[in-house]
Amino acid sequence: MRNICMTVSYDGTAYSGFQTQPSLNTIQDYLEKALFRLTGEVIKVTSSGRTDAGVHSRGQMINFYTASQIPVERWCIAMNMLLPEDIVVSGARQVPMEFHSRRSAVRKTYRYTIRSGRHPDLFKRHLEFFHPTKLNTDSMREGLQHLVGTHDFTSFCSVRSTKLSNIRTIFEARLECEPPDSMLESYAIHIYLTGSGFLYNMVRIIAGTLLQVGEGKRSSDDIRTILEAKNRAKAGPTAVPQGLMLWEVSYSDEVLNLDYSNDL
Amino acid sequence: MRNICMTVSYDGTAYSGFQTQPSLNTIQDYLEKALFRLTGEVIKVTSSGRTDAGVHSRGQMINFYTASQIPVERWCIAMNMLLPEDIVVSGARQVPMEFHSRRSAVRKTYRYTIRSGRHPDLFKRHLEFFHPTKLNTDSMREGLQHLVGTHDFTSFCSVRSTKLSNIRTIFEARLECEPPDSMLESYAIHIYLTGSGFLYNMVRIIAGTLLQVGEGKRSSDDIRTILEAKNRAKAGPTAVPQGLMLWEVSYSDEVLNLDYSNDL
Repeated sequence: MRNICMTVSYDGTAYSGFQTQPSLNTIQDYLEKALFRLTGEVIKVTSSGRTDAGVHSRGQMINFYTASQIPVERWCIAMNMLLPEDIVVSGARQVPMEFHSRRSAVRKTYRYTIRSGRHPDLFKRHLEFFHPTKLNTDSMREGLQHLVGTHDFTSFCSVRSTKLSNIRTIFEARLECEPPDSMLESYAIHIYLTGSGFLYNMVRIIAGTLLQVGEGKRSSDDIRTILEAKNRAKAGPTAVPQGLMLWEVSYSDEVLNLDYSNDL
Repeated sequence: MRNICMTVSYDGTAYSGFQTQPSLNTIQDYLEKALFRLTGEVIKVTSSGRTDAGVHSRGQMINFYTASQIPVERWCIAMNMLLPEDIVVSGARQVPMEFHSRRSAVRKTYRYTIRSGRHPDLFKRHLEFFHPTKLNTDSMREGLQHLVGTHDFTSFCSVRSTKLSNIRTIFEARLECEPPDSMLESYAIHIYLTGSGFLYNMVRIIAGTLLQVGEGKRSSDDIRTILEAKNRAKAGPTAVPQGLMLWEVSYSDEVLNLDYSNDL
């Protein structure tokens, strides 16, 4: 048996999220179907974490065990021939047997994108949350900094979460503005959050709360007060899923980046 | 009566092109339907030129005559409420009665986008022609320069064209490469062509021929030889429609940019 790890990108628009469901219209279902066609084995994939319906991924990581002898460099091409065009495997490697795409992850980055201004960018309508009025991005940037560090994120977690602890560490939080599009009179604001792990709806609730900071409905210091309250009702609304993208998942060199080239 | 000019962007993926057809699934049909609902008038719009099925527009220009007294600054919002989300009116102004969005145009720019490298960008799959092998963009850039100037473009025109003259002027032709995406190991190549007018399939045939130059199947000087041959069979294939976007249409200040603010 081998443990194979893959990088998977997907446009979540047409799917009911990552994790398998009776509807069978999930990213996981399509991946497992393609793996069955490729290997003849009934394979269950493990991901770095589920994503909700409508949420996208640039760098989701999965792993699975297989007896198949397909050389690692062939997996991408073979999988992409069997997958719908809105799911793409962009990397594959053999990893140590103990590698687990969720438990071995040391860092995850999510990106949330808001387009602010006069007109939405219709070519990115599934990737951006359109906000037609002006936002104070300096305040949003200040508010964001209160999240960096180790905190109890109960206020920024869906009440439907079942996690035992809501303490997580945010290593980095930054906000980047794209240059405005002169024809649309609008621009994209990207919020990048890198942390040890994220709670259910955490990034979307942070984005919804930061939007209120940007609108001037809350001050940037309110983010700190909301954190301290440990009460979901104190934060803003959950922003729409289509602005969210799982950007990157990182692993330590020991667990992932060993040189297996001699094994191929 | 007033003559209203609008800037229209659309994602051409779901439509049978710009110009009205019995199927009624064209951009023009949706625009005219929205105008009817808005004004109660049966309005026929004139465009700067048709676009084929699957071709996109960032800056298509249309104009139409109406007795409606809707203030110019309200047209965009009103139209966008009635249009599907993949068609957006991003500008509206009153223009002189003699303004005609095709005949008054002095310059048009098209963009053709190729993604070259290991993996396609799935979030731009409807906007880019994916080419999995390496391209020599220096040669492509050299080849492109042979097109600048006034030429008979018969070799780069569909044999189905019905135009009397195939002589057109290309004012500017440039190729720009985006920085590579490290995860996808690929990058976007944008070819911008600005000219007095374009023949049927002209930009797509130019893109298809330049691709052969990039692949090394032809030299950059072949572009000049192909032009001189005035024979469609000498050029390369017609590149797929989804890489093409009508980028911008320009008018002289006299015909468009008069200040009508006093009339509103």
